[in-house]
Amino acid sequence: MVESAAMATPQPLTMPLEEAMRTQRAIRRLKPDPVDDALVLHLVELALKAPTGSNAQNWEFVVVKDRAVKAALGRLNRSAGTLYLRLQRRLATRAGDTRKLRLLDAVQWQADHFAETPVVVVACLNGIVLPWPSIAAASAYGSIFPSVQNLLLAARAAGLGAALITLPLWSRFFARRALGLPWNVTPCAVIPLGWPSGRYGPTTRRPVGEVVSLDRYGNRPFRQPA
Amino acid sequence: MVESAAMATPQPLTMPLEEAMRTQRAIRRLKPDPVDDALVLHLVELALKAPTGSNAQNWEFVVVKDRAVKAALGRLNRSAGTLYLRLQRRLATRAGDTRKLRLLDAVQWQADHFAETPVVVVACLNGIVLPWPSIAAASAYGSIFPSVQNLLLAARAAGLGAALITLPLWSRFFARRALGLPWNVTPCAVIPLGWPSGRYGPTTRRPVGEVVSLDRYGNRPFRQPA
Repeated sequence: MVESAAMATPQPLTMPLEEAMRTQRAIRRLKPDPVDDALVLHLVELALKAPTGSNAQNWEFVVVKDRAVKAALGRLNRSAGTLYLRLQRRLATRAGDTRKLRLLDAVQWQADHFAETPVVVVACLNGIVLPWPSIAAASAYGSIFPSVQNLLLAARAAGLGAALITLPLWSRFFARRALGLPWNVTPCAVIPLGWPSGRYGPTTRRPVGEVVSLDRYGNRPFRQPA
Repeated sequence: MVESAAMATPQPLTMPLEEAMRTQRAIRRLKPDPVDDALVLHLVELALKAPTGSNAQNWEFVVVKDRAVKAALGRLNRSAGTLYLRLQRRLATRAGDTRKLRLLDAVQWQADHFAETPVVVVACLNGIVLPWPSIAAASAYGSIFPSVQNLLLAARAAGLGAALITLPLWSRFFARRALGLPWNVTPCAVIPLGWPSGRYGPTTRRPVGEVVSLDRYGNRPFRQPA
Protein backbone atom coordinates (compact mmCIF):
# COMPACT_ATOMS: atom_id res chain seq x y z
CA MET A 1 0.00 0.00 0.00
CA VAL A 2 2.82 2.39 0.84
CA GLU A 3 4.52 1.80 -2.49
CA SER A 4 1.40 2.36 -4.53
CA ALA A 5 0.44 5.48 -2.61
CA ALA A 6 3.88 6.91 -3.32
CA MET A 7 3.38 6.39 -7.06
CA ALA A 8 -0.15 7.67 -7.25
CA THR A 9 -1.09 11.28 -7.68
CA PRO A 10 -1.23 12.83 -4.21
CA GLN A 11 -4.60 14.60 -4.39
CA PRO A 12 -7.53 12.37 -3.53
CA LEU A 13 -10.61 12.64 -5.75
CA THR A 14 -12.98 14.68 -3.65
CA MET A 15 -16.01 14.91 -5.93
CA PRO A 16 -19.09 13.82 -3.99
CA LEU A 17 -20.02 10.25 -4.85
CA GLU A 18 -23.52 11.04 -6.03
CA GLU A 19 -22.36 13.89 -8.26
CA ALA A 20 -19.79 11.60 -9.90
CA MET A 21 -22.45 8.96 -10.54
CA ARG A 22 -25.06 11.38 -11.83
CA THR A 23 -22.66 13.03 -14.27
CA GLN A 24 -20.80 9.94 -15.44
CA ARG A 25 -21.21 9.31 -19.13
CA ALA A 26 -19.23 7.73 -21.94
CA ILE A 27 -16.85 10.35 -23.32
CA ARG A 28 -15.54 9.13 -26.66
CA ARG A 29 -14.11 12.28 -28.26
CA LEU A 30 -10.75 12.76 -26.57
CA LYS A 31 -7.98 15.29 -27.00
CA PRO A 32 -4.61 13.82 -28.00
CA ASP A 33 -2.87 15.47 -24.99
CA PRO A 34 -0.99 13.00 -22.81
CA VAL A 35 -2.29 11.78 -19.46
CA ASP A 36 0.16 11.44 -16.57
CA ASP A 37 1.11 7.91 -15.61
CA ALA A 38 0.57 8.86 -11.97
CA LEU A 39 -3.05 9.76 -12.67
CA VAL A 40 -3.68 6.55 -14.60
CA LEU A 41 -2.15 4.53 -11.76
CA HIS A 42 -4.29 6.44 -9.28
CA LEU A 43 -7.40 5.39 -11.22
CA VAL A 44 -6.25 1.78 -11.35
CA GLU A 45 -5.44 1.82 -7.66
CA LEU A 46 -9.03 2.86 -6.96
CA ALA A 47 -10.24 0.19 -9.38
CA LEU A 48 -8.47 -2.34 -7.14
CA LYS A 49 -10.67 -1.26 -4.24
CA ALA A 50 -13.69 -2.93 -5.84
CA PRO A 51 -14.83 -6.30 -4.52
CA THR A 52 -13.85 -9.63 -6.08
CA GLY A 53 -15.33 -13.08 -5.55
CA SER A 54 -13.74 -14.72 -2.48
CA ASN A 55 -11.57 -11.56 -2.35
CA ALA A 56 -9.29 -13.24 -4.90
CA GLN A 57 -8.18 -9.92 -6.46
CA ASN A 58 -7.43 -11.93 -9.57
CA TRP A 59 -7.13 -9.07 -12.01
CA GLU A 60 -4.57 -7.61 -14.33
CA PHE A 61 -4.62 -4.18 -15.94
CA VAL A 62 -2.72 -3.47 -19.12
CA VAL A 63 -2.09 0.24 -19.63
CA VAL A 64 -1.48 0.77 -23.33
CA LYS A 65 0.40 3.86 -24.53
CA ASP A 66 2.43 2.27 -27.36
CA ARG A 67 0.88 3.46 -30.60
CA ALA A 68 1.40 0.12 -32.35
CA VAL A 69 -0.55 -1.75 -29.66
CA LYS A 70 -3.29 0.89 -29.69
CA ALA A 71 -3.46 0.59 -33.48
CA ALA A 72 -3.80 -3.19 -33.19
CA LEU A 73 -6.69 -2.78 -30.72
CA GLY A 74 -8.16 -0.15 -33.03
CA ARG A 75 -8.09 -2.59 -35.96
CA LEU A 76 -9.88 -5.18 -33.84
CA ASN A 77 -12.41 -2.56 -32.79
CA ARG A 78 -12.97 -1.58 -36.40
CA SER A 79 -13.27 -5.11 -37.75
CA ALA A 80 -16.14 -5.83 -35.37
CA GLY A 81 -17.44 -2.28 -35.25
CA THR A 82 -17.98 -1.53 -38.91
CA LEU A 83 -20.77 -4.05 -39.28
CA TYR A 84 -22.24 -3.11 -35.92
CA LEU A 85 -22.21 0.60 -36.69
CA ARG A 86 -23.77 0.14 -40.11
CA LEU A 87 -26.59 -1.95 -38.69
CA GLN A 88 -27.20 0.37 -35.74
CA ARG A 89 -27.15 3.44 -37.98
CA ARG A 90 -29.70 1.93 -40.30
CA LEU A 91 -31.98 1.04 -37.38
CA ALA A 92 -31.60 4.49 -35.78
CA THR A 93 -32.21 6.30 -39.08
CA ARG A 94 -35.31 4.26 -39.73
CA ALA A 95 -36.59 5.02 -36.21
CA GLY A 96 -35.66 8.72 -36.51
CA ASP A 97 -33.66 8.32 -33.27
CA THR A 98 -31.43 11.42 -33.36
CA ARG A 99 -30.00 10.77 -29.89
CA LYS A 100 -28.86 7.33 -30.97
CA LEU A 101 -27.42 8.77 -34.19
CA ARG A 102 -25.37 11.25 -32.16
CA LEU A 103 -24.11 8.38 -30.00
CA LEU A 104 -23.17 6.44 -33.13
CA ASP A 105 -21.30 9.49 -34.45
CA ALA A 106 -19.24 9.48 -31.27
CA VAL A 107 -18.63 5.73 -31.56
CA GLN A 108 -17.51 6.28 -35.15
CA TRP A 109 -15.20 9.11 -34.07
CA GLN A 110 -13.67 6.84 -31.44
CA ALA A 111 -13.13 4.09 -34.01
CA ASP A 112 -11.51 6.54 -36.45
CA HIS A 113 -9.15 7.94 -33.81
CA PHE A 114 -8.46 4.85 -31.75
CA ALA A 115 -4.68 4.83 -32.26
CA GLU A 116 -4.48 8.46 -31.08
CA THR A 117 -6.20 7.68 -27.77
CA PRO A 118 -3.74 8.85 -25.11
CA VAL A 119 -4.13 5.79 -22.91
CA VAL A 120 -6.11 2.59 -23.31
CA VAL A 121 -6.63 0.48 -20.20
CA VAL A 122 -7.53 -3.17 -20.67
CA ALA A 123 -9.03 -4.83 -17.61
CA CYS A 124 -8.34 -8.55 -17.47
CA LEU A 125 -9.15 -11.47 -15.25
CA ASN A 126 -6.24 -13.58 -14.15
CA GLY A 127 -7.81 -16.87 -15.15
CA ILE A 128 -10.12 -18.18 -17.81
CA VAL A 129 -13.85 -17.67 -17.75
CA LEU A 130 -15.76 -20.91 -17.94
CA PRO A 131 -19.01 -20.54 -19.90
CA TRP A 132 -20.66 -23.14 -17.68
CA PRO A 133 -22.03 -23.35 -15.03
CA SER A 134 -23.56 -19.93 -15.50
CA ILE A 135 -22.69 -18.91 -11.94
CA ALA A 136 -19.00 -19.36 -12.78
CA ALA A 137 -19.21 -16.80 -15.59
CA ALA A 138 -21.34 -14.42 -13.50
CA SER A 139 -18.90 -14.65 -10.59
CA ALA A 140 -15.90 -14.14 -12.86
CA TYR A 141 -17.27 -11.06 -14.61
CA GLY A 142 -18.64 -9.90 -11.27
CA SER A 143 -15.02 -9.80 -10.12
CA ILE A 144 -13.84 -7.42 -12.85
CA PHE A 145 -16.67 -5.10 -13.89
CA PRO A 146 -17.06 -3.52 -10.43
CA SER A 147 -13.41 -2.49 -10.70
CA VAL A 148 -14.03 -1.15 -14.20
CA GLN A 149 -16.86 0.97 -12.82
CA ASN A 150 -14.55 2.30 -10.09
CA LEU A 151 -12.08 3.24 -12.81
CA LEU A 152 -14.78 5.02 -14.83
CA LEU A 153 -16.11 6.91 -11.81
CA ALA A 154 -12.60 7.90 -10.77
CA ALA A 155 -11.90 9.10 -14.31
CA ARG A 156 -15.04 11.21 -14.18
CA ALA A 157 -14.05 12.69 -10.81
CA ALA A 158 -10.60 13.50 -12.21
CA GLY A 159 -12.17 15.18 -15.24
CA LEU A 160 -10.79 12.55 -17.61
CA GLY A 161 -12.89 11.25 -20.47
CA ALA A 162 -13.53 7.51 -20.45
CA ALA A 163 -15.85 4.88 -21.85
CA LEU A 164 -16.39 1.17 -21.39
CA ILE A 165 -16.14 -0.83 -24.58
CA THR A 166 -15.83 -4.51 -25.39
CA LEU A 167 -15.79 -4.56 -29.21
CA PRO A 168 -11.97 -4.75 -29.49
CA LEU A 169 -12.25 -8.03 -27.59
CA TRP A 170 -14.63 -9.76 -30.00
CA SER A 171 -11.80 -12.22 -30.64
CA ARG A 172 -9.94 -13.07 -27.46
CA PHE A 173 -7.33 -14.84 -29.55
CA PHE A 174 -6.44 -11.67 -31.45
CA ALA A 175 -6.82 -9.45 -28.38
CA ARG A 176 -4.44 -11.67 -26.40
CA ARG A 177 -1.97 -11.54 -29.28
CA ALA A 178 -2.13 -7.74 -29.46
CA LEU A 179 -1.52 -7.41 -25.72
CA GLY A 180 0.90 -10.29 -25.22
CA LEU A 181 -1.52 -11.93 -22.81
CA PRO A 182 -1.05 -15.59 -21.96
CA TRP A 183 -3.97 -17.93 -22.68
CA ASN A 184 -4.98 -17.95 -19.03
CA VAL A 185 -5.44 -14.19 -18.68
CA THR A 186 -8.78 -13.05 -20.04
CA PRO A 187 -9.28 -9.52 -21.39
CA CYS A 188 -12.76 -8.35 -20.33
CA ALA A 189 -13.10 -4.60 -20.89
CA VAL A 190 -11.36 -1.79 -22.74
CA ILE A 191 -11.35 1.76 -21.39
CA PRO A 192 -9.94 4.50 -23.67
CA LEU A 193 -8.83 7.43 -21.50
CA GLY A 194 -7.98 11.03 -22.34
CA TRP A 195 -8.85 14.62 -21.65
CA PRO A 196 -12.36 15.15 -22.97
CA SER A 197 -13.45 17.14 -25.98
CA GLY A 198 -17.02 16.47 -24.95
CA ARG A 199 -18.54 17.30 -21.61
CA TYR A 200 -19.71 15.27 -18.68
CA GLY A 201 -23.25 15.99 -17.59
CA PRO A 202 -26.50 14.47 -16.44
CA THR A 203 -27.77 11.37 -18.18
CA THR A 204 -31.33 10.28 -18.72
CA ARG A 205 -32.65 7.03 -17.38
CA ARG A 206 -35.97 5.30 -17.05
CA PRO A 207 -37.67 6.15 -13.74
CA VAL A 208 -36.52 3.82 -10.99
CA GLY A 209 -40.08 2.63 -10.30
CA GLU A 210 -40.19 1.14 -13.80
CA VAL A 211 -37.28 -1.20 -13.22
CA VAL A 212 -37.86 -2.13 -9.58
CA SER A 213 -40.09 -4.99 -8.52
CA LEU A 214 -40.94 -5.64 -4.89
CA ASP A 215 -40.54 -9.23 -3.66
CA ARG A 216 -41.59 -10.82 -6.94
CA TYR A 217 -40.90 -9.81 -10.50
CA GLY A 218 -43.56 -7.55 -11.99
CA ASN A 219 -44.92 -6.28 -8.66
CA ARG A 220 -44.23 -2.56 -9.12
CA PRO A 221 -45.59 -0.52 -6.20
CA PHE A 222 -42.98 2.22 -6.74
CA ARG A 223 -44.13 3.00 -10.24
CA GLN A 224 -45.51 6.51 -10.45
CA PRO A 225 -48.93 7.06 -12.00
CA ALA A 226 -48.64 8.49 -15.52
CA MET B 1 -36.47 11.58 -13.61
CA VAL B 2 -38.96 13.81 -11.86
CA GLU B 3 -40.97 10.85 -10.66
CA SER B 4 -38.01 8.94 -9.34
CA ALA B 5 -36.50 11.99 -7.68
CA ALA B 6 -39.76 12.53 -5.87
CA MET B 7 -39.63 8.99 -4.51
CA ALA B 8 -36.00 8.95 -3.59
CA THR B 9 -34.59 10.23 -0.33
CA PRO B 10 -33.93 13.94 -0.71
CA GLN B 11 -30.35 14.17 0.62
CA PRO B 12 -27.73 13.42 -2.00
CA LEU B 13 -24.83 11.21 -0.92
CA THR B 14 -22.00 13.66 -0.40
CA MET B 15 -19.17 11.37 0.69
CA PRO B 16 -16.13 12.08 -1.47
CA LEU B 17 -15.79 9.48 -4.21
CA GLU B 18 -12.33 8.33 -3.21
CA GLU B 19 -13.26 7.97 0.45
CA ALA B 20 -16.24 5.80 -0.51
CA MET B 21 -14.05 3.59 -2.68
CA ARG B 22 -11.23 3.29 -0.16
CA THR B 23 -13.57 2.33 2.67
CA GLN B 24 -15.94 0.06 0.75
CA ARG B 25 -15.95 -3.47 2.01
CA ALA B 26 -18.35 -6.37 2.23
CA ILE B 27 -20.45 -5.96 5.38
CA ARG B 28 -22.19 -9.24 6.11
CA ARG B 29 -23.26 -8.86 9.73
CA LEU B 30 -26.38 -6.71 9.59
CA LYS B 31 -28.79 -5.45 12.19
CA PRO B 32 -32.41 -6.55 11.73
CA ASP B 33 -33.61 -2.91 11.78
CA PRO B 34 -35.67 -1.95 8.72
CA VAL B 35 -34.28 0.15 5.89
CA ASP B 36 -36.49 2.82 4.35
CA ASP B 37 -37.86 2.06 0.89
CA ALA B 38 -36.89 5.59 -0.14
CA LEU B 39 -33.26 4.91 0.69
CA VAL B 40 -33.25 1.59 -1.17
CA LEU B 41 -34.80 3.28 -4.20
CA HIS B 42 -32.22 6.03 -3.96
CA LEU B 43 -29.46 3.41 -4.16
CA VAL B 44 -31.13 1.70 -7.10
CA GLU B 45 -31.60 5.02 -8.84
CA LEU B 46 -27.85 5.61 -8.59
CA ALA B 47 -27.25 2.06 -9.80
CA LEU B 48 -29.17 3.02 -12.94
CA LYS B 49 -26.61 5.74 -13.66
CA ALA B 50 -24.01 3.12 -14.55
CA PRO B 51 -23.26 2.46 -18.21
CA THR B 52 -24.84 -0.36 -20.23
CA GLY B 53 -23.81 -1.77 -23.59
CA SER B 54 -25.37 0.28 -26.40
CA ASN B 55 -27.04 2.23 -23.57
CA ALA B 56 -29.73 -0.44 -23.53
CA GLN B 57 -30.48 -0.03 -19.80
CA ASN B 58 -31.77 -3.58 -19.92
CA TRP B 59 -31.85 -4.24 -16.24
CA GLU B 60 -34.37 -5.18 -13.59
CA PHE B 61 -33.96 -4.92 -9.82
CA VAL B 62 -35.99 -7.04 -7.46
CA VAL B 63 -36.14 -5.58 -3.96
CA VAL B 64 -36.96 -8.43 -1.60
CA LYS B 65 -38.47 -7.68 1.81
CA ASP B 66 -40.94 -10.61 2.02
CA ARG B 67 -39.51 -13.05 4.53
CA ALA B 68 -40.65 -16.10 2.56
CA VAL B 69 -38.78 -14.96 -0.54
CA LYS B 70 -35.70 -14.10 1.51
CA ALA B 71 -35.89 -17.53 3.13
CA ALA B 72 -36.06 -19.18 -0.30
CA LEU B 73 -32.96 -17.26 -1.41
CA GLY B 74 -31.32 -18.18 1.87
CA ARG B 75 -31.97 -21.87 1.23
CA LEU B 76 -30.39 -21.57 -2.20
CA ASN B 77 -27.45 -19.75 -0.66
CA ARG B 78 -27.04 -22.47 1.92
CA SER B 79 -27.36 -25.38 -0.46
CA ALA B 80 -24.44 -24.09 -2.50
CA GLY B 81 -22.64 -22.43 0.36
CA THR B 82 -22.29 -25.29 2.79
CA LEU B 83 -19.94 -27.22 0.56
CA TYR B 84 -18.09 -24.07 -0.43
CA LEU B 85 -17.65 -22.96 3.17
CA ARG B 86 -16.46 -26.35 4.34
CA LEU B 87 -13.85 -26.52 1.59
CA GLN B 88 -12.70 -22.95 2.09
CA ARG B 89 -12.47 -23.36 5.84
CA ARG B 90 -10.37 -26.46 5.49
CA LEU B 91 -8.01 -24.69 3.08
CA ALA B 92 -7.78 -21.59 5.28
CA THR B 93 -7.20 -23.63 8.43
CA ARG B 94 -4.46 -25.62 6.75
CA ALA B 95 -2.80 -22.39 5.54
CA GLY B 96 -3.23 -20.72 8.94
CA ASP B 97 -4.98 -17.84 7.14
CA THR B 98 -6.74 -16.12 10.06
CA ARG B 99 -7.97 -13.24 7.88
CA LYS B 100 -9.67 -15.70 5.56
CA LEU B 101 -11.14 -17.55 8.53
CA ARG B 102 -12.65 -14.31 9.84
CA LEU B 103 -14.13 -13.67 6.38
CA LEU B 104 -15.58 -17.19 6.36
CA ASP B 105 -17.09 -16.58 9.81
CA ALA B 106 -18.88 -13.56 8.37
CA VAL B 107 -20.04 -15.55 5.34
CA GLN B 108 -21.35 -18.20 7.72
CA TRP B 109 -23.14 -15.58 9.81
CA GLN B 110 -24.76 -14.20 6.66
CA ALA B 111 -25.89 -17.68 5.61
CA ASP B 112 -27.33 -18.37 9.08
CA HIS B 113 -29.25 -15.07 9.17
CA PHE B 114 -30.21 -14.70 5.53
CA ALA B 115 -33.97 -14.61 6.08
CA GLU B 116 -33.56 -11.79 8.64
CA THR B 117 -31.69 -9.57 6.17
CA PRO B 118 -33.74 -6.36 6.07
CA VAL B 119 -33.61 -5.99 2.28
CA VAL B 120 -32.13 -8.18 -0.42
CA VAL B 121 -31.66 -6.60 -3.84
CA VAL B 122 -31.33 -8.91 -6.83
CA ALA B 123 -29.85 -7.27 -9.92
CA CYS B 124 -31.05 -8.87 -13.14
CA LEU B 125 -30.47 -8.49 -16.84
CA ASN B 126 -33.56 -8.16 -18.95
CA GLY B 127 -32.56 -10.84 -21.42
CA ILE B 128 -30.69 -14.09 -21.43
CA VAL B 129 -26.93 -14.33 -21.33
CA LEU B 130 -25.52 -16.33 -24.21
CA PRO B 131 -22.45 -18.33 -23.17
CA TRP B 132 -21.00 -17.90 -26.67
CA PRO B 133 -19.48 -15.90 -28.29
CA SER B 134 -17.49 -14.87 -25.23
CA ILE B 135 -17.91 -11.18 -26.04
CA ALA B 136 -21.68 -11.59 -25.69
CA ALA B 137 -21.33 -12.80 -22.11
CA ALA B 138 -18.73 -10.14 -21.27
CA SER B 139 -20.93 -7.39 -22.71
CA ALA B 140 -24.00 -8.68 -20.90
CA TYR B 141 -22.35 -8.90 -17.48
CA GLY B 142 -20.55 -5.64 -18.27
CA SER B 143 -24.04 -4.09 -18.44
CA ILE B 144 -25.08 -5.13 -14.94
CA PHE B 145 -22.03 -5.31 -12.65
CA PRO B 146 -21.13 -1.61 -13.04
CA SER B 147 -24.62 -0.82 -11.72
CA VAL B 148 -24.10 -3.28 -8.87
CA GLN B 149 -20.89 -1.47 -7.95
CA ASN B 150 -22.75 1.86 -7.98
CA LEU B 151 -25.27 0.34 -5.60
CA LEU B 152 -22.53 -0.94 -3.28
CA LEU B 153 -20.69 2.40 -3.26
CA ALA B 154 -23.92 4.27 -2.66
CA ALA B 155 -24.74 1.91 0.22
CA ARG B 156 -21.33 2.60 1.70
CA ALA B 157 -21.83 6.38 1.38
CA ALA B 158 -25.23 6.03 3.05
CA GLY B 159 -23.69 4.02 5.88
CA LEU B 160 -25.62 0.89 4.91
CA GLY B 161 -23.98 -2.50 5.06
CA ALA B 162 -23.88 -4.39 1.78
CA ALA B 163 -22.08 -7.20 0.02
CA LEU B 164 -22.04 -8.68 -3.47
CA ILE B 165 -22.83 -12.37 -3.57
CA THR B 166 -23.73 -14.81 -6.31
CA LEU B 167 -24.09 -18.12 -4.46
CA PRO B 168 -27.92 -17.93 -4.15
CA LEU B 169 -27.96 -17.90 -7.96
CA TRP B 170 -26.05 -21.15 -8.45
CA SER B 171 -29.24 -22.50 -10.03
CA ARG B 172 -30.93 -19.90 -12.19
CA PHE B 173 -33.92 -22.18 -12.45
CA PHE B 174 -34.51 -22.17 -8.70
CA ALA B 175 -33.58 -18.50 -8.35
CA ARG B 176 -36.07 -17.52 -11.06
CA ARG B 177 -38.71 -19.59 -9.32
CA ALA B 178 -38.05 -17.93 -5.95
CA LEU B 179 -38.30 -14.46 -7.47
CA GLY B 180 -41.05 -15.07 -10.02
CA LEU B 181 -38.69 -14.14 -12.84
CA PRO B 182 -39.60 -15.14 -16.37
CA TRP B 183 -37.09 -17.30 -18.27
CA ASN B 184 -35.81 -14.29 -20.21
CA VAL B 185 -34.82 -12.25 -17.15
CA THR B 186 -31.46 -13.35 -15.76
CA PRO B 187 -30.58 -12.86 -12.09
CA CYS B 188 -26.90 -11.88 -11.88
CA ALA B 189 -26.08 -10.58 -8.42
CA VAL B 190 -27.54 -10.57 -4.93
CA ILE B 191 -26.93 -7.68 -2.53
CA PRO B 192 -28.11 -8.11 1.08
CA LEU B 193 -28.61 -4.66 2.62
CA GLY B 194 -29.01 -3.50 6.20
CA TRP B 195 -27.58 -1.30 8.89
CA PRO B 196 -24.16 -2.68 9.70
CA SER B 197 -23.06 -4.46 12.84
CA GLY B 198 -19.54 -4.40 11.44
CA ARG B 199 -17.66 -1.33 10.37
CA TYR B 200 -16.54 0.04 7.06
CA GLY B 201 -12.87 0.83 6.81
CA PRO B 202 -9.78 0.62 4.67
CA THR B 203 -9.11 -2.58 2.77
CA THR B 204 -5.80 -4.09 1.80
CA ARG B 205 -4.84 -4.72 -1.78
CA ARG B 206 -1.78 -5.75 -3.67
CA PRO B 207 0.29 -2.72 -4.77
CA VAL B 208 -0.97 -1.31 -8.06
CA GLY B 209 2.44 -1.81 -9.71
CA GLU B 210 2.04 -5.56 -9.26
CA VAL B 211 -1.11 -5.79 -11.34
CA VAL B 212 -0.38 -3.17 -14.00
CA SER B 213 1.51 -3.97 -17.17
CA LEU B 214 2.57 -1.28 -19.63
CA ASP B 215 1.76 -1.91 -23.30
CA ARG B 216 2.31 -5.64 -23.12
CA TYR B 217 1.47 -8.14 -20.41
CA GLY B 218 4.28 -8.69 -17.94
CA ASN B 219 6.08 -5.40 -18.61
CA ARG B 220 5.89 -3.91 -15.12
CA PRO B 221 7.74 -0.58 -14.93
CA PHE B 222 5.51 0.66 -12.10
CA ARG B 223 6.49 -2.14 -9.77
CA GLN B 224 8.30 -0.80 -6.75
CA PRO B 225 11.63 -2.33 -5.79
CA ALA B 226 11.29 -4.58 -2.77
